[in-house]
Amino acid sequence: MAYEIATIPGDGIGPEVVDAALPLFEDAADAAGFSFETERFDWGSERYVEEGAMMPDDGLDRLESSDSILLGAVGHPEVPDHVTLHGLLLPIRKGFDQGICKRPSVLFDGIESPLRGYEGGDIDFVVYRENTEGEYADVGGREHLGFDNDVAVQSGVFTRDATERIVRAAFDAATEREGKVTSITKSNAQAHSMVFWDDIVEEIGDEYPGVEVERLLVDAASMDFIRRPEQFDVVVASNLFGDILTDIGAIVTGSMGLAPSANINPEGEYPSMFEPVHGSAPDIVGQGVANPLATVLSGSMLFEHLGEQAAADAVWDAVTEQVADPDAPRTPDLGGEAATEDVVADLRDRLSV
Amino acid sequence: MAYEIATIPGDGIGPEVVDAALPLFEDAADAAGFSFETERFDWGSERYVEEGAMMPDDGLDRLESSDSILLGAVGHPEVPDHVTLHGLLLPIRKGFDQGICKRPSVLFDGIESPLRGYEGGDIDFVVYRENTEGEYADVGGREHLGFDNDVAVQSGVFTRDATERIVRAAFDAATEREGKVTSITKSNAQAHSMVFWDDIVEEIGDEYPGVEVERLLVDAASMDFIRRPEQFDVVVASNLFGDILTDIGAIVTGSMGLAPSANINPEGEYPSMFEPVHGSAPDIVGQGVANPLATVLSGSMLFEHLGEQAAADAVWDAVTEQVADPDAPRTPDLGGEAATEDVVADLRDRLSV
Ligand SMILES: CC(C)[C@H](C(=O)O)[C@@H](O)C(=O)O
Ligand SMILES: CC(C)[C@H](C(=O)O)[C@@H](O)C(=O)O
Repeated sequence: MAYEIATIPGDGIGPEVVDAALPLFEDAADAAGFSFETERFDWGSERYVEEGAMMPDDGLDRLESSDSILLGAVGHPEVPDHVTLHGLLLPIRKGFDQGICKRPSVLFDGIESPLRGYEGGDIDFVVYRENTEGEYADVGGREHLGFDNDVAVQSGVFTRDATERIVRAAFDAATEREGKVTSITKSNAQAHSMVFWDDIVEEIGDEYPGVEVERLLVDAASMDFIRRPEQFDVVVASNLFGDILTDIGAIVTGSMGLAPSANINPEGEYPSMFEPVHGSAPDIVGQGVANPLATVLSGSMLFEHLGEQAAADAVWDAVTEQVADPDAPRTPDLGGEAATEDVVADLRDRLSV
Repeated sequence: MAYEIATIPGDGIGPEVVDAALPLFEDAADAAGFSFETERFDWGSERYVEEGAMMPDDGLDRLESSDSILLGAVGHPEVPDHVTLHGLLLPIRKGFDQGICKRPSVLFDGIESPLRGYEGGDIDFVVYRENTEGEYADVGGREHLGFDNDVAVQSGVFTRDATERIVRAAFDAATEREGKVTSITKSNAQAHSMVFWDDIVEEIGDEYPGVEVERLLVDAASMDFIRRPEQFDVVVASNLFGDILTDIGAIVTGSMGLAPSANINPEGEYPSMFEPVHGSAPDIVGQGVANPLATVLSGSMLFEHLGEQAAADAVWDAVTEQVADPDAPRTPDLGGEAATEDVVADLRDRLSV
């Protein structure tokens, strides 16, 4: 069985981490007895600067036949963010109905948290983020531009289908984990959208009597991710709240360089996309020191999604073992001096399927 | 000159901290040569439970003649949050056009940050939060309730007046501080509202050539409040982003028990309101151990707003001195065993105008 994986290395360090990680993924597939082919799409901000678009008009059609997509990073200092994102990342998430964004936050052994008193192993939760609508809906506008009564409106749109889907995914995940779901809202100030969200959490929660449900306001949750991160299991949140909370989750578990993510189309109608949470890091481009681990862990999530659990575990375990080893190579963001490729070479040595 | 201060002790620990702090405020006023009278309004969730409304219909009229308002806390386990907040706190902020919410985040000497490597004195920034509109606009609705196509819409509304006002307040503050403004947006995903915000920051920034302007996305900012809080000076944000970031600011500087806030009507047409950032803390109500310091510091901001700088400084300095003294009384949230009233008694001893 040969899978087809589309790669979109993207901007900045994106190509560095994707290119570095692929040989490791090939080793893992070999050892687990399957193979994959990659097709590379050089889309991104350079293309935008040259051709006026991040990807071609038929970009989604070209990706659609692949089994999964691996994305590096998108973002460029000379291209406005709303162009880079609305031109590539967000259209894929929305156009392939990748309604479930799954982002684990794990404090690995050997990694120092910026929080006092937390050691490797103390933090392990996963955020399920709605990924196609909510506060990211492209609905709104601006009126009276250039006049004193200039006004902008930005509307969040929450549908039952998409909300039920993400909430159900979170409850399903909780039944496989510690049995607790924390739902994030801001119902006290956003009564239209968030009371709707609360209602759906309550309805779905009734179907899972064995799962404990906690509700937190987003401001309190942002605090609690710092004050008591060990107490979370599965967290479910809207697109915007999930965005904010997963960045906090990444930093309290030591580094953006270690945070993977999966953008999943649960019906399997379209390909799902896997990407590190970090950005394109223009400050370190071309130095060969970008941390590949978030991409490596995203690859593990990709294998898991394909049903290749042995390869997924092998990749994840190699990272776990490497970061726990004080003598293993580390990139500068983790306090070491190693190059991207040294880290991957060491992982390949550790790989055992 | 006698000021009139309206007090709304509110719910939970609100009355405990307001009642405890008032004698200290009287001492400070006496010593600085002015006086104030208080009028107490027992509005809040108990009133809601008994009479069906958090405050009377003419609540704002009754407050309007006061020079300032001191609020304790609002929120009750048995009343839904959107009722308690839309019934009292948010109507005052909006109805009195308190467009500027100012929230300092200071890591005092003697207070331990949950962040490794940060000592007292290392963190000192202030967030200017838009306080009347944006994502908190009561605009939106729900359609097809009970059907599969159930959908909710929540619209953020951003006007030029309100946005210019908060941005200008931030730039003015920066000229009195370290000369740096960090503007928070999510322009990459919310292009309607946030590009509008960016435009206004750019226009106003041009009027302050001596002020350095940094732009950060809210997700990155949430991380950076943890990763490099020492690098912020003045932060300006929308209503929702300011809400989230000020809670992170409170926790990284040691405790919600120390975070004050001012809701300012800059034109002085209506009274401004001062309140601790913390909530009603139902878990510790009635034990007499609520930390009064956030309310005390809010009182200092109230005096400053009235132009009584000597009293404002005296109150602020008493807190600074107390928390730096390892032998001074501390409430349990700061690791001590003292009661609310012991903390205030000690502050009164330290007060010197
Ligand atoms: C780049 C941006 C649009 C994106 C998001 O907000 O979803 C990123 O922050 C993320 O979390 O993947
Ligand atoms: C209680 C709530 C409505 C309020 C807000 O979101 O503004 C609070 O969190 C705050 O920060 O003052």
